[in-house]
Order: sequence, then structure tokens, then C-alpha cells
Amino acid sequence: MRSPLEDIRLKFQPKLPKILEKLSQLSPVDNGTKSQIAPEVGTYFSHLSRTPEKITFTSKKKNQHDAHKVGVVFSGGPAPGGHNVISGLYDALKKLNKESQLIGFLNGPKGILEGNFIKITEDLLANYRNQGGFDLIGTGRTKIETTDHFESAERVARKLDLDGLVIIGGDDSNTNAAFLAEYFLSKNCKTTVVGIPKTIDGDLKNEEIEISFGFDTASKVYSEFIGNVARDALSAKKHTYFIKLMGRSASHLTLECALSTHPNMTLIGEEIAAAKKTLLQITHDIADIIVARSEKGKDYGVILIPEGIIEFIPEFKQLIAELDSIKSDQMNADVVLTKLSKESAHCFKSLPHAIQEQLLGDRDAHGNVQVSKIETERLLINAVKQELKERAKAGVFKGTFTPQPLFCGYEGRCSMPSNFDAQYCYALGQTAALFIDNQLTGYICYVSGLSHPVEEWGIGGRNLATMMGIEMRKGKAKPVIKKAMVDLHSRMFEEFKENRKKWALTDDYRQPGPIQFTDNPQVTDALTYMLK
Amino acid sequence: MRSPLEDIRLKFQPKLPKILEKLSQLSPVDNGTKSQIAPEVGTYFSHLSRTPEKITFTSKKKNQHDAHKVGVVFSGGPAPGGHNVISGLYDALKKLNKESQLIGFLNGPKGILEGNFIKITEDLLANYRNQGGFDLIGTGRTKIETTDHFESAERVARKLDLDGLVIIGGDDSNTNAAFLAEYFLSKNCKTTVVGIPKTIDGDLKNEEIEISFGFDTASKVYSEFIGNVARDALSAKKHTYFIKLMGRSASHLTLECALSTHPNMTLIGEEIAAAKKTLLQITHDIADIIVARSEKGKDYGVILIPEGIIEFIPEFKQLIAELDSIKSDQMNADVVLTKLSKESAHCFKSLPHAIQEQLLGDRDAHGNVQVSKIETERLLINAVKQELKERAKAGVFKGTFTPQPLFCGYEGRCSMPSNFDAQYCYALGQTAALFIDNQLTGYICYVSGLSHPVEEWGIGGRNLATMMGIEMRKGKAKPVIKKAMVDLHSRMFEEFKENRKKWALTDDYRQPGPIQFTDNPQVTDALTYMLK
Repeated sequence: MRSPLEDIRLKFQPKLPKILEKLSQLSPVDNGTKSQIAPEVGTYFSHLSRTPEKITFTSKKKNQHDAHKVGVVFSGGPAPGGHNVISGLYDALKKLNKESQLIGFLNGPKGILEGNFIKITEDLLANYRNQGGFDLIGTGRTKIETTDHFESAERVARKLDLDGLVIIGGDDSNTNAAFLAEYFLSKNCKTTVVGIPKTIDGDLKNEEIEISFGFDTASKVYSEFIGNVARDALSAKKHTYFIKLMGRSASHLTLECALSTHPNMTLIGEEIAAAKKTLLQITHDIADIIVARSEKGKDYGVILIPEGIIEFIPEFKQLIAELDSIKSDQMNADVVLTKLSKESAHCFKSLPHAIQEQLLGDRDAHGNVQVSKIETERLLINAVKQELKERAKAGVFKGTFTPQPLFCGYEGRCSMPSNFDAQYCYALGQTAALFIDNQLTGYICYVSGLSHPVEEWGIGGRNLATMMGIEMRKGKAKPVIKKAMVDLHSRMFEEFKENRKKWALTDDYRQPGPIQFTDNPQVTDALTYMLK
Repeated sequence: MRSPLEDIRLKFQPKLPKILEKLSQLSPVDNGTKSQIAPEVGTYFSHLSRTPEKITFTSKKKNQHDAHKVGVVFSGGPAPGGHNVISGLYDALKKLNKESQLIGFLNGPKGILEGNFIKITEDLLANYRNQGGFDLIGTGRTKIETTDHFESAERVARKLDLDGLVIIGGDDSNTNAAFLAEYFLSKNCKTTVVGIPKTIDGDLKNEEIEISFGFDTASKVYSEFIGNVARDALSAKKHTYFIKLMGRSASHLTLECALSTHPNMTLIGEEIAAAKKTLLQITHDIADIIVARSEKGKDYGVILIPEGIIEFIPEFKQLIAELDSIKSDQMNADVVLTKLSKESAHCFKSLPHAIQEQLLGDRDAHGNVQVSKIETERLLINAVKQELKERAKAGVFKGTFTPQPLFCGYEGRCSMPSNFDAQYCYALGQTAALFIDNQLTGYICYVSGLSHPVEEWGIGGRNLATMMGIEMRKGKAKPVIKKAMVDLHSRMFEEFKENRKKWALTDDYRQPGPIQFTDNPQVTDALTYMLK
């Protein structure tokens, strides 16, 4: 049953970049530069190494377009705008040739392996345009990465006679898309593989990919939440809110929300890593600000904590690495303590019982400790509480400390996409259709000039193999798309650094409020700081 | 620093009920019925017993109005719309006589006791109209309830020469407002005391007070969150979300959000109390639905849990009562276990370590266990996990269970008020000015006909003493305003009961999306179910 706003959003017509209005006249242009692929990566991609680094499109005369059969799949966690990638893809395929067909593989990449899919029709899509979620076809975390997987995928692609496969995913999923494209080329399988940059985390980003889809909406949902909570801190003057935010290793979401809401303190994982700060130092930093605010009569505040921070704190990095090497059936506190190094055992024992349980809890699909399950906000509260007790004893802290842990997470992944994400995703989907129509495989689609009006946006694709570097995965060297971390020299980080001292002590909170969809473009189309 | 939406909301002009457009011509009308006050309550209120039960207003010829000096105060937790009560009050006072003055007591009722206030001016208010939060003057939980307090309040009222005092609060604060009004009458102090029904919890409600302010906005903020999370459940098909909601003892917010989002299961405290369900029975109920969904291949879902539920489960009610009677310096597990009854000791020992710590943690201002700090969502997850393990062993449950605790709380208290709350509060503030102008004391203001267009709303006030019953507080009988609990025979509860079976197994989730402020009244002015 739909809400009135869901109904209204169904009728929203995403604006198209001018270039996509001439869809059927567009022809690909190779930018002429040879693909820059690291030699150790190139050995894995003998075919993709020979295709252009970048493809853009230019309008020529109207061409004939063949009918295509195309598959689409969501991979990994949901992000706002996914349904619009599918509707953009569908609309463009049909515009190029109304005989084209689109199928959606169900519940993530395992839908490809199992050949489990539905046909996407206009009637079906009519219920999903501009809506949040990935529920039209579901998603999943199965990875297509082994030879068995590639063979299954090839079998299904051939059986279904697929001309193209669009993989909507993050860095890992697009890494696997590159390998699949390479495999299909090596097997003379005609299916072109195209990637779409999805992730609320914002860590899939480079010169061409200005932002991944979903980041804009998720950061706005979290900023609404944080702005409300900051106003609550200032009204009740009672709580210090420790707000953990999603974002995996990278602190993009946290930095974006900080610029949008002006909290009293914001931890940035990349900065902590660069300074090699220990938990004790971080605890002192937080306590310093709490004490300084308390001296001004302010026993309340807002602190933002990126979920990935724990991986950057040296003693935890070490502890987690050691825990990862212990077999999962030995994960009880007594056994573990006999196996840890002296330093890690000390670190483990210093943790609250609940955090110890989280560290010993269920492993992820790779058999690793689930870092995202560790409640860093509670860990920090516990450490800060102890530190403030000491300072109170020493007569340095005279205030009260009433911490409250909060979490910005799942509510941002399936929110209704902002106008930006709705239009960005629609354009990405249309671009994917062009790559398939032109039999260009192994590319990730991008839309450029995103800080300009939609009409002026450009489109293109980047050779996935050119985005890769070698990293160790499960003890083996493997080419992967490198995560984009927060750049400590970026304009965004500079702006944050310039202001954070002021934000620490004044209450210059900013309340962005809920995402608006109509009326005033100043509000409905507010750009993220990432794109400014 | 303000966001664009904050700027836009500053310019919003709340519509006025027609009757308030003739503000300066309005005269009070006694509805003629004698105040119905319970005899045991009447002994506390010899003066208020002699004033009319209900006051409404009618338009006569234009009167002269004296200039007044009026104080206003926030009491208790924030709720969206508070600033609009103040702006309505200010605008009406100035319209009746431009020499009138408004002061705001700072940081709650203790601002009255200490004579700590600021002057409210047009310039100051210009930054707070239609904004969330209580930060213009702050709030606090100090209660004015002892003779000392009353004497301090009288001293300040006389010193400041106050004609009126507007207390914006919930059931407790309005109970205290009644006692203060009675005290001032008994001392021939001219200050009229007027209450305003504030609470996101929705438990301050009767024939005249159709809804407390803030409930509409908070329920919409939580419904946005729940709708997003439900869509996430359906997209990733992985998590069972256990979402705890604010609302203290009453389950109004939870019931409202259930009707708005259609979760798979919703616990209602009042229903559990009526059925005298134990934790084990509740655990079985939840496990039954999880198993039934799993049989349909659905290992995901959404469960709503009101925060007050713990008080309704018999073994916890008993345990908490016993813990309340143990001195706070004896609150460690070993000591406590020697003092509890056998049943309560058993209950305590069965709890996860983290919950035990919450039960033994800091007490509230009355020295009681802070029930709202107990993470019921985690308690239930733990119990359900155990139960499902048993059922898996018995071969009855073959699915996976990945629970995720979430909390809807602080982000709803200071959100930007919806159009409804902005207009409702503005009308409440104007009504308060009329009571003071007419020297009517001991009334709580109300606005009636709220499901109709704003223009048709009525206004009035109800004698606070007529809303009271006797309850035991700290071992003593005391007249208090009775909390309005969820009525299990109401139309709202019937609608929930009719649908919940369907919602349990189908995924009929409804996503209300973020609160909208402009364009389409179907969305911006959507009525809460409480008012439908």
C-alpha cells in the first residue's frame, strides 16, 4: 500500500541531460589515450588492456539500432536511486529499439549464477519509478569471482542470449564486473558487461566518477537526523550524543554530514590513521572538548563517529588482525586470551563486556570479524566516561556527562531518492544502454558536470581495468578497484578543518531538515559538499 | 548558521482559525456545567473547584484590553512546535495591547524559581518561528511541587509583577500548573497560570484535548525512519529489525507508526498488560511470526517495540519494583541478588549482561530505575535468539535470524514542526493569551476540531483540576492528571487489529517518506491516525 508521497514521486519526471535527449543519434568516441593500466594489473586483463580508457558520446545522424536482450542486477547493500537506474536503462533500451528486452536477476549476483530472473515490463516499473529500495529485484552479497562462477554466468548468459549485463554495485562488485567482462571476451561470449557506481559510502570515486549514487540522499537523511539531535542537545542541554555513521572504512559520509550540521566534534578515520592516534589519544581529544564546553556551562554536545574508525586505531587494527587469524570455533574469551599477543590481550581485556562479545560474535562471509558490528560509539563512551571520572577526581572536570549512543545507518539506504539521485541514476541507466547498444564491455558508466544543471551534464564510461591496483585479499595479491578515502588535502577537508574549532565550543548547529521534493530548487536540489 | 529550509520555514505564516482572527472581540463563555471534580481531588483545590469546568470564547464588540506582563516556560522533554506556542502567545498579546510584554524563563521551571529569564522581542522571535527545538529559552525537568517551590514562584511572580504564566508541558507539568494556580489564588497573587498540552508521547489527551502538540511531527519523523528501514528489509532480505520507539508508558506513538508503515509485528504495551503476558509468551509470539515468515522464504522483517513495554511485563514490573527499593549504593549484581525475591533473582540472572548493567545503572531524579534506559529491543532479540535456537534444534525453524536493534527517539523531539504542529501550536499560544487577558487561571488550553481545516478550528480551556485523579506517588496519595493510555476499544486499535495478521506475513510496507512542507496539501497536511 502506497503513501501519498510515494504516489506523487511515481509521477516525477527526471530531467534529462541535453545529450541524452538525442539518444538515438549518439555514437561513441574514443578519447584517444591509451589505457593506463598498471603492468601487474594488465596481466589479468589482456583484453580490457586493449580497449580505450575512456568513451564519450557525440551526436551524429540518426542510426538504426538493433534490438537487445539485457540483464540487470543489484549487488551489495541498497542505495537510494537504484530503481531509477533500471527505469533509465529500460526507457533508453526501448527508445533505441522497442523490441529490446530487459530482465532483472533476482536477489543479487546469485540470481545470475542460478539463472533466476524476472522480465521487467512497463507495468512493473510503473510502481518503482523514483522510489527508494532495491525491492523490484532484490539484492545480495554473493560475489562472482571464481572460475566456477564465471562458467555459470557464461552458461546463463548464452542460454538467455544476453547482449548485455548491467551490474549495479560498489568497488568490489565493479571489480568483479571487470573480471567477468574479461572472461566473456576471452570466451568469445557476446554479452557486454557494464558497471554502475553505487554506494552510499561515497568511496567509489575518481576523476570521472564525481560521486557514487545514493551518497547524496543518504547523507541528507543522516543530516536531517543529526540536525534534529543537535537541536535537541541545545534545547534539553543534557545529553552528549555519540552518533556513529555508516560508511565502512571511509569517512566521506561523516565529513559530509559534519559540513552540513556543524557538530561539536567529528572524528575522521583517515586523519586518525595519518596521525597514528591510539584509543587513549582519541579519548583525550574528546574529553578535552567536553571539559572545555563544560567550563562554558555546556554539559551537552554532538560527536560524529564514522563506523570504520575502529580499523584505523593501531591497537584495534592489531587486535582484529590477530582475532581474524583465530579459528571461529575457538572464539570464546578464555581461549582467545591464550592466543593473543600481550598487547592485544591487554586491549581486549580493557574493553566492555558487550564489545568483547561483538568481537567474538559471528564472522562475515570471508571468516573475518564483522567490524561494522562493533559498537564504536559505546566503546568511546565507555573510555571517555573513565577519563572524565579521572579528571573529575583531579578537580579538572566539574560538569556532568550524560552520553547517549545513536546510529545513522539502515534508514539511509532505502530512503526515497532526492531529486539529484533520481535524475543522476536515470541518466546513469540511460548511459548503460548506450554502452550495450555499442557493444562496449568492461566500462563503468559515469555522468559528469554534476554540480551544473542537469541539462548540462555529460556522459561517458571508464575502462574498469584502468581503475585497479593490486591489494592483498585473503593473503593473495589481487587487482581491485581502490577505495577512495577522504583526501586530507581536499577543499572539503580544509573547510572542515577551518571551522571545527569554532564548532567545538559555540553551538553553531545547522538543521538541514527533511529532504524536500517540490517547490524551491534551493532546497530540493541542494548540492552535497562532495560536489561543491 | 541556518540551512535553506530553516530560512524558508521562518517565512511560513501559520493559518489562523477564523475565531482567532477576531481576537480582540472575543469574550469568555462559561459552558454552565459545574466543575466535576472527584471529592478526594477537590480537597486539594478549594479555589479551582469553584471555577467553571470549561471556557470557550465568543465574538462580541471590540473591547479595550489592558497591557499585561506574561511569563512563559518549557517544562520536560522538547516537542516540535514549542517555538510556535511562544510566537502565537507573543503575537496575540501584542495584538490585544502593544504595550504587553513577554518574558521567557530559562531552562525550565528552575528559571521561575531562580527568577532567571529573558525578554522576548520581535527580533529574537524572528529567528525561531516555525523552527524545531526549545532552544529559544531551553527546558528542564525541575518540578514546582513543594511549598518552598511555590513560595519562590510567588516571590518571583510578585517581583516581576506577572499577570500571567504559561506552562508548556506534559501531564506532570500541568499537574504542577494546577497546584501553582491554586496556590496563587490562595495567596491572592494576581498571576494567572495557564497550561499548554505538550508531549510527543500523545498521553495527555481527553474529550477536549484531541492531541498533544509534537505528536504529529514526531510520529511522522519515526514513520519516515521505519518506512525506510522496512524497504531496506524487503530489498536486502537479510535483517529482522527490532525498532524501539519513544513514548514512555503509553504505546500511542508505536500504534500511530504501525498504522502508517505496516510492520510485520507491533507490540502494544496496553494489550500486553491486559493479557498479562510474560516475557516468555511475548518471545513465543515473536518467534511464531518469524518462523511463519521464514516458511515463506522471508528471513527478514520489521518489529515495533514501545519503550514502555518493559513496565507491563509482570516479571519485570516486579523486578523493577524490588530494585527501586534497594538503596542505590548497593547496586552491584552480587549484593542485589541477595536482596531480590527468588523469582526476581531468577529473572535478573536470565538477562544479558548489558541489560543487567542498565538495571543497576544511574537512577532517575526520584531515585528509581530509569526504565527508558533499558534496551528492551536487545532484551527481546536475546530472548528470541534463544527461542529460535531451540526451535531450530527441534527442526521447526530452518531459516536464518539476523536481528538488528534500532531506536526511534531523540531525533523526533526537536524536528521542524509539520504544518499541522506549526499551526496548532500557534493557535494554542494565541488561546493562552486570551486566558491571561481574561484573568482565567488553572486552565489548560485546547484547540478543537483538529481534523477539520484550520479555519474551522475552535478554541477553549479546561479546568485542570477536573482532569485529575488520585494516584500513589513516592508512597503518597496525590492528585495527578491521569496519563491517557491506548484504548483497546478505540477505532485506531480496531484498525490495527484488523490488519496485523495480513501485515505479519505479506510485505505490505508503506513508506511515508520525509515530512514535506510545500506544494501538495495531501502530503503536507496529512492527518495523524490519532485525529482521523
